[in-house]
Amino acid sequence: MIIVLKPDVSQADIDHVVQRIKDHGLTPHVSAGKERTIIGVIGDERAIENLPLSIFPGVDKVMPILSPYKLVSREFKHEDTLVAVGPDRTIQIGGTRLHVMAGPCAVESLERLMTVAESVRAAGATILRGGAFKPRTSPHSFQGLGDEGLDHLIEAKKKTGLPIVTEVLDTRDVELVASKADILQIGTRNMQNFRLLIEVGQTDKPVMLKRGLSATIKEFLLSAEYIMKQGNPRVILCERGIRTFETQVRNTLDLAAVPVLKQLSHLPVIVDPSHATGKWELVAPMAKAAIAAGADGLMIEVHANPEEALCDGEESLKPPKFHAMMQELKKVAAAVGREL
Amino acid sequence: MIIVLKPDVSQADIDHVVQRIKDHGLTPHVSAGKERTIIGVIGDERAIENLPLSIFPGVDKVMPILSPYKLVSREFKHEDTLVAVGPDRTIQIGGTRLHVMAGPCAVESLERLMTVAESVRAAGATILRGGAFKPRTSPHSFQGLGDEGLDHLIEAKKKTGLPIVTEVLDTRDVELVASKADILQIGTRNMQNFRLLIEVGQTDKPVMLKRGLSATIKEFLLSAEYIMKQGNPRVILCERGIRTFETQVRNTLDLAAVPVLKQLSHLPVIVDPSHATGKWELVAPMAKAAIAAGADGLMIEVHANPEEALCDGEESLKPPKFHAMMQELKKVAAAVGREL
Amino acid sequence: MIIVLKPDVSQADIDHVVQRIKDHGLTPHVSAGKERTIIGVIGDERAIENLPLSIFPGVDKVMPILSPYKLVSREFKHEDTLVAVGPDRTIQIGGTRLHVMAGPCAVESLERLMTVAESVRAAGATILRGGAFKPRTSPHSFQGLGDEGLDHLIEAKKKTGLPIVTEVLDTRDVELVASKADILQIGTRNMQNFRLLIEVGQTDKPVMLKRGLSATIKEFLLSAEYIMKQGNPRVILCERGIRTFETQVRNTLDLAAVPVLKQLSHLPVIVDPSHATGKWELVAPMAKAAIAAGADGLMIEVHANPEEALCDGEESLKPPKFHAMMQELKKVAAAVGREL
Amino acid sequence: MIIVLKPDVSQADIDHVVQRIKDHGLTPHVSAGKERTIIGVIGDERAIENLPLSIFPGVDKVMPILSPYKLVSREFKHEDTLVAVGPDRTIQIGGTRLHVMAGPCAVESLERLMTVAESVRAAGATILRGGAFKPRTSPHSFQGLGDEGLDHLIEAKKKTGLPIVTEVLDTRDVELVASKADILQIGTRNMQNFRLLIEVGQTDKPVMLKRGLSATIKEFLLSAEYIMKQGNPRVILCERGIRTFETQVRNTLDLAAVPVLKQLSHLPVIVDPSHATGKWELVAPMAKAAIAAGADGLMIEVHANPEEALCDGEESLKPPKFHAMMQELKKVAAAVGREL
Repeated sequence: MIIVLKPDVSQADIDHVVQRIKDHGLTPHVSAGKERTIIGVIGDERAIENLPLSIFPGVDKVMPILSPYKLVSREFKHEDTLVAVGPDRTIQIGGTRLHVMAGPCAVESLERLMTVAESVRAAGATILRGGAFKPRTSPHSFQGLGDEGLDHLIEAKKKTGLPIVTEVLDTRDVELVASKADILQIGTRNMQNFRLLIEVGQTDKPVMLKRGLSATIKEFLLSAEYIMKQGNPRVILCERGIRTFETQVRNTLDLAAVPVLKQLSHLPVIVDPSHATGKWELVAPMAKAAIAAGADGLMIEVHANPEEALCDGEESLKPPKFHAMMQELKKVAAAVGREL
Repeated sequence: MIIVLKPDVSQADIDHVVQRIKDHGLTPHVSAGKERTIIGVIGDERAIENLPLSIFPGVDKVMPILSPYKLVSREFKHEDTLVAVGPDRTIQIGGTRLHVMAGPCAVESLERLMTVAESVRAAGATILRGGAFKPRTSPHSFQGLGDEGLDHLIEAKKKTGLPIVTEVLDTRDVELVASKADILQIGTRNMQNFRLLIEVGQTDKPVMLKRGLSATIKEFLLSAEYIMKQGNPRVILCERGIRTFETQVRNTLDLAAVPVLKQLSHLPVIVDPSHATGKWELVAPMAKAAIAAGADGLMIEVHANPEEALCDGEESLKPPKFHAMMQELKKVAAAVGREL
Repeated sequence: MIIVLKPDVSQADIDHVVQRIKDHGLTPHVSAGKERTIIGVIGDERAIENLPLSIFPGVDKVMPILSPYKLVSREFKHEDTLVAVGPDRTIQIGGTRLHVMAGPCAVESLERLMTVAESVRAAGATILRGGAFKPRTSPHSFQGLGDEGLDHLIEAKKKTGLPIVTEVLDTRDVELVASKADILQIGTRNMQNFRLLIEVGQTDKPVMLKRGLSATIKEFLLSAEYIMKQGNPRVILCERGIRTFETQVRNTLDLAAVPVLKQLSHLPVIVDPSHATGKWELVAPMAKAAIAAGADGLMIEVHANPEEALCDGEESLKPPKFHAMMQELKKVAAAVGREL
Repeated sequence: MIIVLKPDVSQADIDHVVQRIKDHGLTPHVSAGKERTIIGVIGDERAIENLPLSIFPGVDKVMPILSPYKLVSREFKHEDTLVAVGPDRTIQIGGTRLHVMAGPCAVESLERLMTVAESVRAAGATILRGGAFKPRTSPHSFQGLGDEGLDHLIEAKKKTGLPIVTEVLDTRDVELVASKADILQIGTRNMQNFRLLIEVGQTDKPVMLKRGLSATIKEFLLSAEYIMKQGNPRVILCERGIRTFETQVRNTLDLAAVPVLKQLSHLPVIVDPSHATGKWELVAPMAKAAIAAGADGLMIEVHANPEEALCDGEESLKPPKFHAMMQELKKVAAAVGREL
């Protein structure tokens, strides 16, 4: 940590800052420059990251040197983390082979779910997605089938062999969902629901953590750190678009986040182009772009009859379009040295 | 709702849309213009707000006419809502008299809390704030005293007579916090934690709902609608800054939201300049501006010794500065026809 | 255009709006719904787009149906525009074949320019970029060689055969730059420098228009409309990142803008991953993603010795890295049915 | 400047960075910490601000300590700058007395201008605003009366005695506009039209510089620095709203920018609530808030008949509303120790 002092700082102010740093077991190093005096802090600056040094008399600003997260960082663990999914852990997310999670936004009925599940499996998806508990912006919208939806997912898993990923919204549901799902999804609105992160961090299931709508990459990684700190290292990061001023799309897919996250962290990164764009016709180009950018997988919404969908029909692909897209994705994957 | 059709739409496509609207009990009204044909929908368009009409063949775009919220809207209830606070409900938020909630970011000890509580009461604050459960960006930061913090707040309330407002983070804590606090605070990161909104909507305590970091005003009102839909009409809206590209301040305080919210909704609106700016020296100018803009109250962080604060020391006012600010605020309040 | 009236609108207010619409030669169509009365406007609504109908008594809101641009729209011209570049117009931007514009951020000396020019041509770039007039955020930064820089570009063009693209900043320079460059670049900060757009619209040179840092897609297309309205149809759109809250990268590359622009407009779209990310190590993944998303070409910064660059050294590729990237891009291009 | 090195940096890399810093006449100071080695740079770091140190081998990141602007900074000039306006320089912007610039968005005719000019003077405005050259998002919108508009402004000034502020869009017009206007306005879209900044920096007229739609405060001050660097110290900063995700208002008025700018710079700061909000009913609350926040003045759009306005009718106040607002503003001004 570097503490930049004001041009007119007094010696007493300097001494005060120096003493407080020493109190925390760190070593301050004062360096008087031509225009400014600065204090460098030797030692693990995380010990004082909550000390509000910027308001100490004579202090102009405080610049951290280390990143605030540790367990998720590339410095902490150099090699890529592979997250194994499913009962027999045969699916490895984060390796050369890409994985596509596909299915409806919400589980609407067993029959509809089965139709989609069979078709996405046939097209090459390896994980089935489907929402049982749905976080909806309006209280007047369909909120999901809940428990019954989970059972439909279990049924679909039995018949197709596809492991399932589904969202958990409430700390009170974690145990239940963890007993049924293969991957626990933390949605974008809950990225900083810290109690929920702590709960899923105490399960032994992989967690797919979606980036918050307006979360910085640093905050995203700190939320992953919450999960890992509880002892669960099986975290999959998911970029799903951020909120910007542009209104032609639902959100702005931040694909540069993919290589940035892989530089900073050892965790696998997947992309959800369906929620990011909110328009089915943009899903295929953005899915291709995500793979070209280095994503380890995709999450895609598919619905047999989007006109009838109870949520997000606008962005859902019909099975034939999903199938065609998967064929194109295989080519792009091969072009960047990956398999699908 | 207005459905704009594509220039090359076929009659079959028009018929299909028309039929689907009729299926939902609404009346479509087709109008062929020079450049475009449009379909107006007569009836309560909320019946079809989840129907993904924009992907129907021949449809170009869909434009809702009504706002998606109802209970919180000015159309639903024309006169201002006054939210009564405290055991004897003598404090009324939303009237001519402004109310200031003040206190430390986090409850750190009974002694520290008491010092601040006495001083803010003396300066004119009418409600005591203090966090027992703290949502922190990093898992390595202080997370609050929890239950013990609540007890300290109760103690401070007994001694000062100030009703207390404190945050609830987890559905599992709502019952406990509602049994002790006078106002339940929903923090910015939980504005779309819908399960939590539903739980606090089932209590009989006033709820102070903070705007999400990147929530639109529409989404903010829909979250308030969640609470009201459960039967709790005592909602106080709180503007606390939104995320933008600017880095000189923590967030950008959106003061135009105050008159906009009061135009669209009957609920009272307060402003939190401490969290919005993240810098104590900006709190007083922004507090004055908030009152000038028409806010019904303020939430202000005060700490006897910000250098020692376990959270948000950077933005906390010392008691003498808080006192001085309150004197200035009285003048601004009077200038806009309010009392403090 | 649809005009939504307030719930309590009077007949006199309706009559007033109706009359004003008729005064402009358009036909109003009043439709009384259950909750609201609306007025549809038949005819070319652009005739009244500056009429502030939203403030007319009784009006709640105004919703345009048509897009405000015309000449650039896909409706106006259905087939893709190919922009021919160079003295003999052999390069066609917007077709199956992709084109890469490469070179240094700024022309620094003839010698340095020649080194880069030769190397990018050898690697497969077909157009040479280089700034002679540089718009710099700080007045204390290097502002470009000006006229001399243009002459170096001409010299490099003679020796390599590569047509040149360079930025013009000032209406007073348009004639000069147009006499020397093959493509006139309008930089991101000048996207709404309307006088400059008008001037380049009066030349017979192709114009590469960069999207403004915080321009919506609609505003971007309206700026292109300025150029086309002057009679110059040879406009190339360039996505180069938008400003968001994220600070890990310079800007957020909005790749969904590529398919969206191609849906709305017939103009070719290229992508500049160098300026968007501001980091050389992100250029290759974002270049690949851009092509996968459907871009018609790329603009890439290359410098023989980025450590010595007078501007944007951080994001410049060294020639060997550029060469390696071009090889990878060829594969991605082939995977999406394009050539490079 | 602090250069943070990578954990695995080699001695050769350190030596290389050290040498390059010395080459620029500055003194590097290497400090090996527990987790990282850092290099502090002693001397005026602006000498190396364009050196791309972040890409040097072994470098992790570079953190500037000094602000990149100088002439506009509070450190350079401690006391507030007063900008004198008008032929006899009797109006001083930046002192205890606030000044309101008011008038129509665009000059539409001499008659209309005179009506507004007389009424705003009567209400207490001290400067007349009016656009002769209008930057419009669409090429199909009214672009201003140009030269004729300037002459109308001169005429209005003669009759009312109010000095005039008007926008200049093009470097070719600066001489003309400077010969007629009392304050040259640089609009939000031209905040980084550096050639225009240089031209107005060479006149002897005060310049009102509007903040760019997505400009950081640092960039805003650097644009002011461009003007001052040319020798013109009479710069007035104008906050007018920034672009965010919120769509209920045209832009988000960033009132915290007022105290922040006044902390960082000695230049006066005014606020334009009309353009910021885009809605006339939000102008008065935001004008009051601006004064409460410490603004030195306001710019307000007034039109005798907004329904007929050729631009920005939505946000224009009618003279009686403007008059009423001025009365309220006087009270708020008094409450914060200012006069109006």
